[in-house]
Amino acid sequence: MSGKYAVIFKTVRELPIPQDYLAMSSRMVELVSQMDGFVKIESITDNEGKGVSISYWDSLDAILKWKENKENLVAQKLGKEKWYKYYKVEVCEILNSYESK
Amino acid sequence: MSGKYAVIFKTVRELPIPQDYLAMSSRMVELVSQMDGFVKIESITDNEGKGVSISYWDSLDAILKWKENKENLVAQKLGKEKWYKYYKVEVCEILNSYESK
Repeated sequence: MSGKYAVIFKTVRELPIPQDYLAMSSRMVELVSQMDGFVKIESITDNEGKGVSISYWDSLDAILKWKENKENLVAQKLGKEKWYKYYKVEVCEILNSYESK
Repeated sequence: MSGKYAVIFKTVRELPIPQDYLAMSSRMVELVSQMDGFVKIESITDNEGKGVSISYWDSLDAILKWKENKENLVAQKLGKEKWYKYYKVEVCEILNSYESK
């Protein structure tokens, strides 16, 4: 299962990546994985502080519930204030997909 | 302008990244940038051969024309045969987006 919706979360963080960011990030992955309608999350980071996480979801309602999750709201606030030099969120409907075997 | 559609292209490449791959990749960015309906492309790679490129488009028709571009078809074939251990393409409609200031 791949999910019908994808949320692309692009970030630029300050370097070096602080320990409290890593702890929060790990906790958010744990927490999001428990959400109804969540399918999976895939993340990539480079050496310059750039990162892209793509989460996959079964419904827009599930995405909204996650956005408004209390613990996630705290993390979002900290991210804006402390960790992210830049971020962008794009909520997408997946129209078509194909992959190698 | 951000484009109404996004194509997420996720890859895993063999390491070390070969010179002819880099030349092809650079040529494809040059070529795609000339396509009608193309908006921008953003790429990130890590040290383990993983990569994510997200291209932004004004229409599904423009995406299809790029997929069927002759030079791109050659690059896709080489990618499948030589360079990619894995790839996945997801064509998406962007429903909503927001970013930091």
